[in-house]
Amino acid sequence: TTPFDPTDHPHRRYNPMIGEWVLVSPHRAKRPWQGQNEPPSNEVRPSYDESCYLCPGNTRVNGEVNPKYTGTFVFGNDFAALQQDTPDASSDDPLFTFSAEQGCSRVICFSPDHSKTLPELTDEARVEVVKTWVAQTEELGKDYTWVQVFENKGAMMGCSNPHPHGQVWAQRHLPTLAAKKQQHFSEYYTKQGTSMLADYARREVESDERVVCKNDDWVVVVPYWAAWPFETLLLPRFEANSLLSLNDGQQQSLAQIIGNITTRYDNLFETSFPYSMGWHSAPFDGEAHAEWGLHAHFFPPLLRSASVRKFMVGYEMMAEAQRDLTPEQAAQRLKAQPEVHYKETQR
Amino acid sequence: TTPFDPTDHPHRRYNPMIGEWVLVSPHRAKRPWQGQNEPPSNEVRPSYDESCYLCPGNTRVNGEVNPKYTGTFVFGNDFAALQQDTPDASSDDPLFTFSAEQGCSRVICFSPDHSKTLPELTDEARVEVVKTWVAQTEELGKDYTWVQVFENKGAMMGCSNPHPHGQVWAQRHLPTLAAKKQQHFSEYYTKQGTSMLADYARREVESDERVVCKNDDWVVVVPYWAAWPFETLLLPRFEANSLLSLNDGQQQSLAQIIGNITTRYDNLFETSFPYSMGWHSAPFDGEAHAEWGLHAHFFPPLLRSASVRKFMVGYEMMAEAQRDLTPEQAAQRLKAQPEVHYKETQR
Ligand SMILES: O=P(O)(O)O[C@H]1O[C@H](CO)[C@@H](O)[C@H](O)[C@H]1O
Ligand SMILES: O=P(O)(O)O[C@H]1O[C@H](CO)[C@@H](O)[C@H](O)[C@H]1O
Repeated sequence: TTPFDPTDHPHRRYNPMIGEWVLVSPHRAKRPWQGQNEPPSNEVRPSYDESCYLCPGNTRVNGEVNPKYTGTFVFGNDFAALQQDTPDASSDDPLFTFSAEQGCSRVICFSPDHSKTLPELTDEARVEVVKTWVAQTEELGKDYTWVQVFENKGAMMGCSNPHPHGQVWAQRHLPTLAAKKQQHFSEYYTKQGTSMLADYARREVESDERVVCKNDDWVVVVPYWAAWPFETLLLPRFEANSLLSLNDGQQQSLAQIIGNITTRYDNLFETSFPYSMGWHSAPFDGEAHAEWGLHAHFFPPLLRSASVRKFMVGYEMMAEAQRDLTPEQAAQRLKAQPEVHYKETQR
Repeated sequence: TTPFDPTDHPHRRYNPMIGEWVLVSPHRAKRPWQGQNEPPSNEVRPSYDESCYLCPGNTRVNGEVNPKYTGTFVFGNDFAALQQDTPDASSDDPLFTFSAEQGCSRVICFSPDHSKTLPELTDEARVEVVKTWVAQTEELGKDYTWVQVFENKGAMMGCSNPHPHGQVWAQRHLPTLAAKKQQHFSEYYTKQGTSMLADYARREVESDERVVCKNDDWVVVVPYWAAWPFETLLLPRFEANSLLSLNDGQQQSLAQIIGNITTRYDNLFETSFPYSMGWHSAPFDGEAHAEWGLHAHFFPPLLRSASVRKFMVGYEMMAEAQRDLTPEQAAQRLKAQPEVHYKETQR
């Protein structure tokens, strides 16, 4: 009988952060694709676009005028999904349970330059982005249990404006995914006496099998349990459970590693690589949270090329996430990318 | 102070089937959409397409020739995500847990007619589809714990061929979502002494607030905790925990209600409405499963029109699912649709 080979045989891997499994079917990568092709996203944009509601000096939908900002710029989302002053209400009927929710949604412009994206900014400009994430987290963490910094990049990820920007939403209750992580980090800590992600980062650096890039402070891996084809996890190599734990040097090295991983992403298919990324700091509930490890996820949809994505549909929605290449294969491909952005090289 | 109003104020609803919350932000529906527009899917197709690998008599990628089938037709997926003969292997390292997986993936053609979709078939043809689902579930349930019948409809849902078809995958271990439901159904049964979904179907029929359509045997609701804009849940109004529980009359009435809900879907935006749908029968593990209720989900991505979809991205991937209209509003819009397919009316 053939021995088990993870690059050939279907298997399941366990995501210990959320207690869910992923089905890995490596041979599926061989199937021909006759489905939807995504439109290319390589248009060249001007540095200033007068019809863009995020560019400096332009007027937004609600009539407000953006300042002529030169670094980052934060404002309240004009169609906020969460609001500060929602009146309280709830029901605990087991079949019709609800609870009013208070919160806040803001937009974070990364740069005044309409034509750029995170990998195309300078390290200095990226440090400003990091400092804005930290400042927003600090401010909103005073009022809310959960502060979610994230970026939807690319039309494929529901982003409606190509101006470089992310968002920060905060809510009073711990959201579903945060609550799952809280539970699994706590259980691990109780059992092992250490933080799950600190242990994990150390073991990934040791094995090097799934490491895409690293510097003295940070490491980026395709996690062992990745669901999206080129999903990565960005982890500190020092003790940190929150964006608020970072000193100045760690913010600088973070800006550098973000430039590195997002450049690799763009280089992989020579396209502005779409993704959703987001930060998970420990909840702001007054507890110490030694079990919690700071981390960021990148969830990119592309699978084979700039125009062929992975669909998380039928089986994935009904039963279990499924992937078509191994995390190790994905890591090797990202690791093999040059550190210089393809647009620089083409110039 | 203003009293809480669920059609205006952000709130969270609890999905008792899986223990997760959904953020409802009804006022978000007012925001203008400047993002991606989906390509229209209204091309007229011939009844037979010689380049389609699912049409009767045509040759598939692996050289096999389809029979000249006249009803439904089932064959093994040429690029199966799961295989019967995977050798066993596993690791229980808490950070690198995996397990080899055995299973099976098949394709189910619903009709020889390339031009049709489920709502456009006759009730007789839909009965054949139901009977094929039942037969496949019965056959695969003998070998595997979980049998997942599903359909990805439309290019937007990763479907690579418009020929009317679905799939059935089976796997040895209980997949993640099935395991979650097993847990929550069991807990409810232990506490209440009744099946969660039997109670839920009864209460939805009583209140009528979220009912889209029903017949003597079946009811379709936009569940109280729906995440996708026009998500629905199809429930039996009689005791059943499996597709294998259905008698002949219940299979007939099921074919009828499926015609009804999928016609309403198509009529909503006068387009062939994309979705992923799937059936959840009790696991095939030899237990009685009185806690389990048979049900089908429809997860459609469209939000505002045939070309504007809901993106489950940044916040949804990092924190919690979020929706832009209330389930009650969605139910009313589906309920208001005519029961005759718009293509019939246009004829
Ligand atoms: O099996 P198909 O139709 O080729 O593929 C489709 O359905 C599968 C099961 O939901 C998904 O994993 C794929 O991403 C999707 O494209
Ligand atoms: O807030 P935006 O950018 O208008 O909207 C985008 O991000 C939100 C948060 O992830 C999603 O809920 C929307 O579906 C998406 O289009």
